Amino acid sequence: MTYTAPVKDISFVLNKVIGLREIAKLEGFEEATEDMVGAILEESARFTGEVLAPLNSVGDKEGSTWSESGVKTPEGWKDAYSQFVEAGWGALAFPTEYGGQGLPMCVSSAVQEMWHSANMSFGLCPLLTQGAVDAIHHHASDELKDRYLPKMVEGVWSGTMNLTEPQAGTDLAAIRTSAEPAGDHYLIKGTKIFITYGEQDLTENIVHLVLARLPDAPEGVKGISLFIVPKFLVNDDGSLGERNDLKCVSIEHKLGIHASPTCVMSYGDNAGAVGYLVGKEHHGLMYMFTMMNQARHAVGVEGYGIAERAYQQALSYAKDRKQGQTLLGKSEDDQGIVNHPDVRRILMTMRSSIEAMRGLALECAAAFDIAAKHPDEEVRARCQRRGELLTPLVKGWSTELGVELCSLGVQVHGGMGFIEETGAAQHLRDARIAPIYEGTTAIQANDLIGRKTARDGGQGLMELMADMTETLGQLEKADNTNLKAIAKRFKVAMSSAEETGKWMLGQNDATMPSATSVEFLMMMGRLAGGWMIARSAVAANQLRSEDGADTPFLDAKIMLARYYAERMLPLVESGKTIITESAESTVSVAVDQL
Amino acid sequence: MTYTAPVKDISFVLNKVIGLREIAKLEGFEEATEDMVGAILEESARFTGEVLAPLNSVGDKEGSTWSESGVKTPEGWKDAYSQFVEAGWGALAFPTEYGGQGLPMCVSSAVQEMWHSANMSFGLCPLLTQGAVDAIHHHASDELKDRYLPKMVEGVWSGTMNLTEPQAGTDLAAIRTSAEPAGDHYLIKGTKIFITYGEQDLTENIVHLVLARLPDAPEGVKGISLFIVPKFLVNDDGSLGERNDLKCVSIEHKLGIHASPTCVMSYGDNAGAVGYLVGKEHHGLMYMFTMMNQARHAVGVEGYGIAERAYQQALSYAKDRKQGQTLLGKSEDDQGIVNHPDVRRILMTMRSSIEAMRGLALECAAAFDIAAKHPDEEVRARCQRRGELLTPLVKGWSTELGVELCSLGVQVHGGMGFIEETGAAQHLRDARIAPIYEGTTAIQANDLIGRKTARDGGQGLMELMADMTETLGQLEKADNTNLKAIAKRFKVAMSSAEETGKWMLGQNDATMPSATSVEFLMMMGRLAGGWMIARSAVAANQLRSEDGADTPFLDAKIMLARYYAERMLPLVESGKTIITESAESTVSVAVDQL
Repeated sequence: MTYTAPVKDISFVLNKVIGLREIAKLEGFEEATEDMVGAILEESARFTGEVLAPLNSVGDKEGSTWSESGVKTPEGWKDAYSQFVEAGWGALAFPTEYGGQGLPMCVSSAVQEMWHSANMSFGLCPLLTQGAVDAIHHHASDELKDRYLPKMVEGVWSGTMNLTEPQAGTDLAAIRTSAEPAGDHYLIKGTKIFITYGEQDLTENIVHLVLARLPDAPEGVKGISLFIVPKFLVNDDGSLGERNDLKCVSIEHKLGIHASPTCVMSYGDNAGAVGYLVGKEHHGLMYMFTMMNQARHAVGVEGYGIAERAYQQALSYAKDRKQGQTLLGKSEDDQGIVNHPDVRRILMTMRSSIEAMRGLALECAAAFDIAAKHPDEEVRARCQRRGELLTPLVKGWSTELGVELCSLGVQVHGGMGFIEETGAAQHLRDARIAPIYEGTTAIQANDLIGRKTARDGGQGLMELMADMTETLGQLEKADNTNLKAIAKRFKVAMSSAEETGKWMLGQNDATMPSATSVEFLMMMGRLAGGWMIARSAVAANQLRSEDGADTPFLDAKIMLARYYAERMLPLVESGKTIITESAESTVSVAVDQL
Repeated sequence: MTYTAPVKDISFVLNKVIGLREIAKLEGFEEATEDMVGAILEESARFTGEVLAPLNSVGDKEGSTWSESGVKTPEGWKDAYSQFVEAGWGALAFPTEYGGQGLPMCVSSAVQEMWHSANMSFGLCPLLTQGAVDAIHHHASDELKDRYLPKMVEGVWSGTMNLTEPQAGTDLAAIRTSAEPAGDHYLIKGTKIFITYGEQDLTENIVHLVLARLPDAPEGVKGISLFIVPKFLVNDDGSLGERNDLKCVSIEHKLGIHASPTCVMSYGDNAGAVGYLVGKEHHGLMYMFTMMNQARHAVGVEGYGIAERAYQQALSYAKDRKQGQTLLGKSEDDQGIVNHPDVRRILMTMRSSIEAMRGLALECAAAFDIAAKHPDEEVRARCQRRGELLTPLVKGWSTELGVELCSLGVQVHGGMGFIEETGAAQHLRDARIAPIYEGTTAIQANDLIGRKTARDGGQGLMELMADMTETLGQLEKADNTNLKAIAKRFKVAMSSAEETGKWMLGQNDATMPSATSVEFLMMMGRLAGGWMIARSAVAANQLRSEDGADTPFLDAKIMLARYYAERMLPLVESGKTIITESAESTVSVAVDQL
């Protein structure tokens, strides 16, 4: 099963919908011209299609394996990772001062979609490194940055995030790992679980970021500090020193992403693992949160990245497989099941949803890009709000929808979909982790209704609705029945969302919004995705009138947007009824009656 | 992970909602008194909980294995199957003349739910036998019946269904397996795939029902005949004779139901496999169809059976697992995540959906029971129509929803849900086959809109709506705010469905209903499930006023129905918009634009 990166679709979103050209005008992003980015996307398509994609099924079957001496990644993994480092793929969005290319997040996200489509298990290693680089770059001392970042940016060292402990998953307040001061460093002791790529044979060193408590730490989340705990200590000249007192004691047997080792890490079984404090004491959770938006965004990209792969596989099967006389096939030779209307329905659902998710994720990334570089403080603040508001939607909605789409991908294959060799089932198994890690969907929903909505009295949400109103105006005034049809559904959906938002903000009892927060997240995700795909229809409609326009491509963009509006936006309408009416009955049955 | 059959819930549906007492008045069903059925359910709960459930995880890990000498089921399987046969569990619904117990289908379906909750892979063996018994009983000669049925009813021989070939899945017209007349029998040659329990070590003989073509057969589905092809030939005295010329050449490596061997069967590699014609030549597909309703119903039961298991596991985990301060926990000791409103939402979604599906499946079975035994021909005809109309809903909706609920079950476990040892992921993997086999959801949807709706001009549908109107009246006149709240949503959903049904019937272009048939199936499933759970609320409300009423139990039934109405029925409303508006855009993009 091959993978061909949808470069044309991705470029369309970057160039025609979110406006890469404007972002490339910002100081520091000058290199991100349409041409340069186009070349990067093409090269990334080649690398992911030729190198990463063929290893996806191997990785699933073989998996990573644990032994006393470490974790062995599947056949071919190490070579692929070397090629990845050599080409500098991990360094795209990193600061130039540490060897990165300093490209906008919207570009690096576009590239990362391809990693996850091609090979989600593989993509997780650089994804985690990226999170660790961000945390170190934003919060560590210059000395630590100089010591660790260049190798991590290059990719010869990887990074991990060590948050979870057996008793402390969603509730990080319960963390028990300890850090004892010992001169210029600390001695870390404790057990961390669910550590993605906590141990592997791909890189020379692994830089663990570990949340732990100092002896005098206050209870709860305000007593957590962040430490750099390298697998191998790093000498002053940058060379590797002795092995630190930490090890991977086992890896998990999981539903999916078999090649991505999920490690139980033991720190300080002997004298204590040497760790270096990042930033200030007791600020660990805050530091984690500043990078959380980015990590969550990356997982959202994973959500539709894997769905894109499932879509390509389903489409290919549907073209080849013949079963019965089709309603849409025009000739004897044209009887692939793709010409059964119901198969078309599934493929349209997959394709339009992926385009909506991609649009939203790249819009969100672009907001962070502007927030980082725009000269006007007010613009920066507004874009930061926008990026932060959209992040839980990108993460929560795209990962939940990603699972649904991968399940639809299985369905297109009929009985063959249930056979592992077909490969469709792997995508479903792999996709299933994304709504769980980096904060479950419920956590994203809490973030959405709390930190991102209630805290600013709905300001970010109102700004978003204002931008949607502008798009609605463009749809309505376009001389195109398809755009008018989109406008019809978009308008109703917008008002449903607005009323629901008011209802959420107006609740005095926190139980009501909490009981329906995930419904609200899904509703806002569908609407925001609808907004993005509607914008792609507006752009396509404008481009249609240009000389030499690629009409079939542009028409498809419009019809995908119309299908999305007619198939998905009605769920925003029903979302309003569901949220405002079901909140009470959700919590009306006592636990012992369940 | 244990399983405790929900006997009280099942009995409530049988006794208080669908009216087992009325069914027990029919000639032939006199033994199905509430007391007798209660005792059967209790005993079945014991058997499934103690014998089948503990083997579920073993079956998944070990799987069935193939070798030249045959297929080996997992450790413990054979002993469990012996106990199953000894207790006569397979014989419940079979005709008494062949050793069965002649119980109504609504009772046997209630029992079968427990098989699938406890161990879906195991339950498939008797499920297939049941289908084969039905086909033989209804269509074979007395001689064949006498020769095969007693042992199959007893369970010491199993039965299989051989329809699919590599080129002929959904499209059975493409079947190529051949049958040459040879005296009193036929010689069968061909390859069949996806044959569930096509080979195993549980029974003394395996009776294959095989679709094949005679030499002079007309093309397409009108040239298919049905044959009995036993693994071991059966002598006149009933003893086993020589091995027939058939074998299992491999088994599939699947996403789930690992213990249920999915076989590639090769017939007639040498002289040809001896087969016996069932009924008349070229009538094979029709015979398969008469039993299809029952087999599809059974798979629908599987859909919520597996979801019930996932629900029990999620509930148990949610009570035990503590993470953070909960909004609903009343004391320090009461901080299981079940007291987070969003976890409650998931559990309510699972529980209420399961109750709706169970109600619908048992209602459908009861309709077939009345159709089989009622003295009044008109009642029989109406009930047959009802059973046939509800069957694609039971199969299509319950299996699709079953997958969604098992996925929610994973989510409740957070990161632990993705770890195979937890067991939650197995349910999702197992459940994923149900929307595929015995006809994909698209096939069920075609059946619903074609054979079951358009063919009778919507008569069955209108009769159903009339019965729903009666329930609506009961809800509206009840002096209970919860029932009134249910009525509010039920009324809107009913009118949405009615208008959508009219739209479906009014389309001239077959493409439009075909493009939205699955949406229509899901809409009607949600509505019909809502009708059943609303009826359970009506019943519970009446029972509440009786002396010694089990108020907490009855109140929960009412609140589950209200939650369902407020959470699920709005999707019927949006279904109308989706169906009537998205049909055109579904097929608006050409294949090469996808």
